[in-house]
Amino acid sequence: MIRHTVVFRLRHRANSAEEKAFLAAGKALAAIPGVEKFEQMRQVSRKNGYTFGFSMEFADQAAYDRYNSHPDHVAFVNGRWIPEVEEFLEIDYVPL
Amino acid sequence: MIRHTVVFRLRHRANSAEEKAFLAAGKALAAIPGVEKFEQMRQVSRKNGYTFGFSMEFADQAAYDRYNSHPDHVAFVNGRWIPEVEEFLEIDYVPL
Repeated sequence: MIRHTVVFRLRHRANSAEEKAFLAAGKALAAIPGVEKFEQMRQVSRKNGYTFGFSMEFADQAAYDRYNSHPDHVAFVNGRWIPEVEEFLEIDYVPL
Repeated sequence: MIRHTVVFRLRHRANSAEEKAFLAAGKALAAIPGVEKFEQMRQVSRKNGYTFGFSMEFADQAAYDRYNSHPDHVAFVNGRWIPEVEEFLEIDYVPL
C-alpha cells in the first residue's frame, strides 16, 4: 500500500467560489482507476502555511504510476493544479 | 475528528540501532489516552527530504490538547524528539 498525500494552499481567497470550484473538480480524482480511500481535508495546524490536503491510497507502485499518467489526472494537473495552487508539498507513505 | 501527522528525518543513520530504538520508543505514544489510529510509516516520495511519519487521530481539540500536555508525550518530546530529530513538519487535518 502506498498512501499519496499532498498538502497545499490555493491562490484563491478563502471560501471563494473559485476555491469551491477547485475542490469540486479535485473530487473527480477519486474516480480514476486504482484510487482508494480518497479524502479531501482542511489543514488546520498553525505550524505550516497550507490550508487543504488530498489523500489517496494505491495498492502498489504500478497502480500509482497508472494514476499519474492517467489522462484525467494529467488534465487536472495542467488545467487546475498548476494555475490555481500557490504552494504544495507531496508526502507519500508506506507501512513500516 | 482531528488527524495529527508529523513527517520527519532523524539524525541517525538509516537502519541504525538508534533509528530502531527511536521508532520503538515512539510506539508508546499510541498508549496515551485519546490517541486513535496511531500509525508509524516510511516516507518514500523523492519530492521531500523526510524519511518517516507518525499519524494519529483525536476525537476533538480537547483530546488533542490532553495528549499534548500528557506527561508521556512531554517526556517523549524532550527526551527523544528534540535530541534525535533533524527536521520535521506537523500537518493536521480535519474533514472538509
